[in-house]
Amino acid sequence: MLIGQVVGSVVATQKDEKLAERKLLLVQVHDLNNKPKDQYVVAVDSVGAGPHDMVLYATGSSARQTDITDGRPCDAVVMAVVDSWDLGGENVYEKWS
Amino acid sequence: MLIGQVVGSVVATQKDEKLAERKLLLVQVHDLNNKPKDQYVVAVDSVGAGPHDMVLYATGSSARQTDITDGRPCDAVVMAVVDSWDLGGENVYEKWS
Amino acid sequence: MLIGQVVGSVVATQKDEKLAERKLLLVQVHDLNNKPKDQYVVAVDSVGAGPHDMVLYATGSSARQTDITDGRPCDAVVMAVVDSWDLGGENVYEKWS
Amino acid sequence: MLIGQVVGSVVATQKDEKLAERKLLLVQVHDLNNKPKDQYVVAVDSVGAGPHDMVLYATGSSARQTDITDGRPCDAVVMAVVDSWDLGGENVYEKWS
Amino acid sequence: MLIGQVVGSVVATQKDEKLAERKLLLVQVHDLNNKPKDQYVVAVDSVGAGPHDMVLYATGSSARQTDITDGRPCDAVVMAVVDSWDLGGENVYEKWS
Repeated sequence: MLIGQVVGSVVATQKDEKLAERKLLLVQVHDLNNKPKDQYVVAVDSVGAGPHDMVLYATGSSARQTDITDGRPCDAVVMAVVDSWDLGGENVYEKWS
Repeated sequence: MLIGQVVGSVVATQKDEKLAERKLLLVQVHDLNNKPKDQYVVAVDSVGAGPHDMVLYATGSSARQTDITDGRPCDAVVMAVVDSWDLGGENVYEKWS
Repeated sequence: MLIGQVVGSVVATQKDEKLAERKLLLVQVHDLNNKPKDQYVVAVDSVGAGPHDMVLYATGSSARQTDITDGRPCDAVVMAVVDSWDLGGENVYEKWS
Repeated sequence: MLIGQVVGSVVATQKDEKLAERKLLLVQVHDLNNKPKDQYVVAVDSVGAGPHDMVLYATGSSARQTDITDGRPCDAVVMAVVDSWDLGGENVYEKWS
Repeated sequence: MLIGQVVGSVVATQKDEKLAERKLLLVQVHDLNNKPKDQYVVAVDSVGAGPHDMVLYATGSSARQTDITDGRPCDAVVMAVVDSWDLGGENVYEKWS
């Protein structure tokens, strides 16, 4: 998994029917130090993530192991909202701070 | 999934028979701000995407989860036509504008 | 899938027995404009591609969806010989020209 | 697999229920010579790895082949703690030295 | 698959039990012209490859299609020892020369 921030969302009416009612989040990847990278992914939301949330996303066949994505043409899923992480003993990100 | 634009198509007569009658789209990847990247993919169309459409494509085994691609040697599928997306609260792309 | 050119082949006698009699092609990836990239793959041939042919290859589990590669330790397969492609309405490559 | 060092951990309360009680390690990738790279992964721990341990992690569907990760939306797993490795006949890393 | 050279091996005692007795090779990726790249992989050996051998490795779920790796948390396998390859009609590498 990688850490990213929900920076937007994508609207697509004309899509595979198995993706009906799935929310498509635009997630910008962050590095270990919480700095945004020039990398993004469009991921299906499976945990009710909101704008600006720091999240984890899984890719590939692992992205289809949630009830929301099982058997669907989806290669990325947001499967966790990050509360915090530490790096070398220092807190890097804290949701509630 | 990543966002891309349909910039062309590929013709291949001599191919695995399971790919017969599948339309092969040339998709150029765009970044979050809708700027074209030096990256592309040849993807099977599953939603009737047309030239210049902004689309979403899925890769890997997830690319085989549509009726069009199930069980076929295809590692990328266009599974949605993008209507719009926003980034940080601002509209970046709007199909009908 | 990506577009590449068959630029050589690899010989390997000591290999997993499931790969016996599979032809291993050396494929150099090309970009949208048909310019060679500094990227390659060794792919099993499933369509009788020959030297200098422009081809499409599929990777990952999708590379095992041909009769030639099913159930084998092969993560890339040439599944089509390209006849032509266009980019923005212009023909970029034409096999028979 | 790639070699990395456990440099931290990620806390996420709001997550897919299949990931309950899974420990999420922040792993920084190292190169052949044991130099840290600008690349990381968040991986589920399956072997009791601790802070500063050098580990191996597996990605994709292979990350779901442990009892800890089977059937879960997890695309990276730490499946070994590295004792040592050598490069060109020279010892590069030795856990107990 | 990619071509690489066996440049070392990794020892890991504390690992997923399904990987017991699997040999972990350190493989440095080479380019088309047999020049080493700044890229490596740790792969399970399935063909008895030795130090300095040029090999092919497969990744992802394809890495689990050998008797040695089936059902195990392994995302890379050495499945062939390279005898030779040619590029544009010229021999690039010959094991026995």
